[in-house]
Amino acid sequence: MDRIPILKLGGALIVTIQVDMHDRLALALEEDLTAMIARTGARGVLIEISALEIVDSFIGRMLVSIAAVSRMLDAETVVAGMRPAVAITLVELGLELTGIKTALNVERGMALVQARLSEDHDRGSDLEGLED
Amino acid sequence: MDRIPILKLGGALIVTIQVDMHDRLALALEEDLTAMIARTGARGVLIEISALEIVDSFIGRMLVSIAAVSRMLDAETVVAGMRPAVAITLVELGLELTGIKTALNVERGMALVQARLSEDHDRGSDLEGLED
Repeated sequence: MDRIPILKLGGALIVTIQVDMHDRLALALEEDLTAMIARTGARGVLIEISALEIVDSFIGRMLVSIAAVSRMLDAETVVAGMRPAVAITLVELGLELTGIKTALNVERGMALVQARLSEDHDRGSDLEGLED
Repeated sequence: MDRIPILKLGGALIVTIQVDMHDRLALALEEDLTAMIARTGARGVLIEISALEIVDSFIGRMLVSIAAVSRMLDAETVVAGMRPAVAITLVELGLELTGIKTALNVERGMALVQARLSEDHDRGSDLEGLED
């Protein structure tokens, strides 16, 4: 396996991390994601990590880097399905996953992305009585 | 990795196959899927196999078995993202994936599941002028 599949669904790209990440795989994922955001105009990247029992600083950095690059391309990154033990470890390690939103599961993560898409939609249409 | 993560999204369960399947993993996936169909009332199971360069008779049987069990629980199985080379091999091997719908990608597969959900919805509501 040299590539992690990226699923396009609505305005989101969904990635499920199931395998041990290594340098080359992480780099390939970042490249594939950015290429796909550019090609599809996706507004959100959902990374599902429920299979990961450990998120070390390498994976933490990879997530932060993917989020930063995606943001440049105007897509928001949401990490979904983090195990409670992983959350505890991340806080203990001081890895803050800057710039990354989290969601309990993919469904809620998708809701975040959809909210963003409908904001776009509102902004694009002629709105009357716009508040705030 | 002893479990393949299953993502619930709308009325569908989405599974991305990325790793080499072996007996125990295939069995665990089937068990997890059936339990999750029962718990969530999902109407569709989407299995994304774009990462698979080879679908041998073991994986073929696994897919057919998952589809058969899912059907018992009133959920339809859609295999998405099959590589062209895999399709050729399956036909050559005479593996017909009975009872399984296929879709070019997850987005189209999701459309199949959504169509089924809206059929449910129509049937549940008071319909007038129902044809056929």
